[in-house]
Amino acid sequence: MIDELKLLESLPGIFSPDASVTIPPGDDCAEFVTSSTERYLAAADQLVEQIHFDEKTSPEVAGAKLLNRNLSDIAAMGGTPCWALLTIAANGKTTDYLLEFFRGVARAAKKWQIPVIGGDCASLPEKGLVATLTIIGKSPAAGAIKRSGASAGEYLYVSGKIGNSYKSGRHLTFTPRIAEGAFLAENRLATAMLDVSDGLLLDAQRLASASQVDLKIEIERIPLNDDAVLPQALSDGEDYELLFTSPCRDLEKFWKKEFAPLTRIGRVVPGNGKLVSPNGDAIKDVKLGYVH
Amino acid sequence: MIDELKLLESLPGIFSPDASVTIPPGDDCAEFVTSSTERYLAAADQLVEQIHFDEKTSPEVAGAKLLNRNLSDIAAMGGTPCWALLTIAANGKTTDYLLEFFRGVARAAKKWQIPVIGGDCASLPEKGLVATLTIIGKSPAAGAIKRSGASAGEYLYVSGKIGNSYKSGRHLTFTPRIAEGAFLAENRLATAMLDVSDGLLLDAQRLASASQVDLKIEIERIPLNDDAVLPQALSDGEDYELLFTSPCRDLEKFWKKEFAPLTRIGRVVPGNGKLVSPNGDAIKDVKLGYVH
Repeated sequence: MIDELKLLESLPGIFSPDASVTIPPGDDCAEFVTSSTERYLAAADQLVEQIHFDEKTSPEVAGAKLLNRNLSDIAAMGGTPCWALLTIAANGKTTDYLLEFFRGVARAAKKWQIPVIGGDCASLPEKGLVATLTIIGKSPAAGAIKRSGASAGEYLYVSGKIGNSYKSGRHLTFTPRIAEGAFLAENRLATAMLDVSDGLLLDAQRLASASQVDLKIEIERIPLNDDAVLPQALSDGEDYELLFTSPCRDLEKFWKKEFAPLTRIGRVVPGNGKLVSPNGDAIKDVKLGYVH
Repeated sequence: MIDELKLLESLPGIFSPDASVTIPPGDDCAEFVTSSTERYLAAADQLVEQIHFDEKTSPEVAGAKLLNRNLSDIAAMGGTPCWALLTIAANGKTTDYLLEFFRGVARAAKKWQIPVIGGDCASLPEKGLVATLTIIGKSPAAGAIKRSGASAGEYLYVSGKIGNSYKSGRHLTFTPRIAEGAFLAENRLATAMLDVSDGLLLDAQRLASASQVDLKIEIERIPLNDDAVLPQALSDGEDYELLFTSPCRDLEKFWKKEFAPLTRIGRVVPGNGKLVSPNGDAIKDVKLGYVH
């Protein structure tokens, strides 16, 4: 297992900043600005056999998951996905298996009208499959939603339901919350946002740290899937729901009926990146999350 | 070994075309057009341990190679590189090894002033390393140079010298021909172009096929590295030189002295994708190339 956090913490010192990069690495997407001052989002994600899916997963379902994970990153910024690039390194797979994988990407790409504009195929020295996808999307006109925009006094919301995504298979079949993310951005209803990929509590802590606030979370209000149980549900990850803050206490009033359910689960309070219970105690008795 | 050619041939039927994609997959880069009609290039490439480099290669050198290969794809379209995204999947590597790899990417990125704007780290189930890089670049104002633009009567050129790149280590230390490619595009001096990655003859045949012409190649004029010998030099690959056609017979007159050497090695003649000798015989007695 790579120490991903240690690596990621080292990167800002290694890679130079640049004026064309308006949101640097650290959010769900980076944002860059073109010569005519249009703002675009970009993110890259990987799908590794035996890490993110196993041989029981159909290649078509795995391919769709790869694109949908990237779409969830665009959703978390409030953006609109535009183009994708795909790479695949494989060994011990038939051409038919790989074509099925590509068909899975293509099926999801067609649903969301995203052309796959390029990529690369290579061999692996050992049996297995590593696929990557880079997504390029358009930033919302009202500005991309970063993790760092939450202020004390605001409210914490989550879309959909949480927990047991991996065992239930929902990690393969989820719907990226593109429509919900774009609605929040265009109507300036979210101040900070990310998608729940590594567990609700770990992702909530990332939002709190980036915004330099504490989040007072009412654990019992968190909407769980019927087959999920506390406390695992809060650290399972792979939920791909939107977790965000809003100045609006009654966001349900504006929420569209075709959207995923919306639940207010807490409040933003002054602080420095902690998660706290309503009584003010730090939430620290549950495993925070899973870094894949 | 993946049957890359069979896979790639299947892809146009799998992935839908889109009006925003002005150059679809099949060239060194795809081209997409933004809402304000700016044209950008994108390509993705992989570096797999034991396939593209081995454990004797320093991680810093391997990282630089990954970026430089992508830059060569931008050069082959006449474009200017702008932004990169990096993914890494690894097992059995120390954090220091991975940081050295990132420093190699960063060193090349700094040289060419390309911010690395995002990426992802993941684990591999087996020991090894798979890294990918996606490059986004700006198309030349005069239009990107595709593989398909050659016409009978034009001349065939190659930059630099060819052959023995892998054994000599030059595949790790080459200079992507960004300046030469941009010069050719901005001055409309090249009609079709690609970079020599899989062997000069195989890449020449790709250009001939895409343009639906034959290429009459004077093998003895092809500039070889001192340590290279025919016929292997023509199929070794990993030269990362520009191979292009031009209506101009005396391109040397306009060539800048700081550029890599330029050699005219043949002529474009009517045909349907063959390589022929000056006497008109098909060139088929040498192995065409190596698909990595």
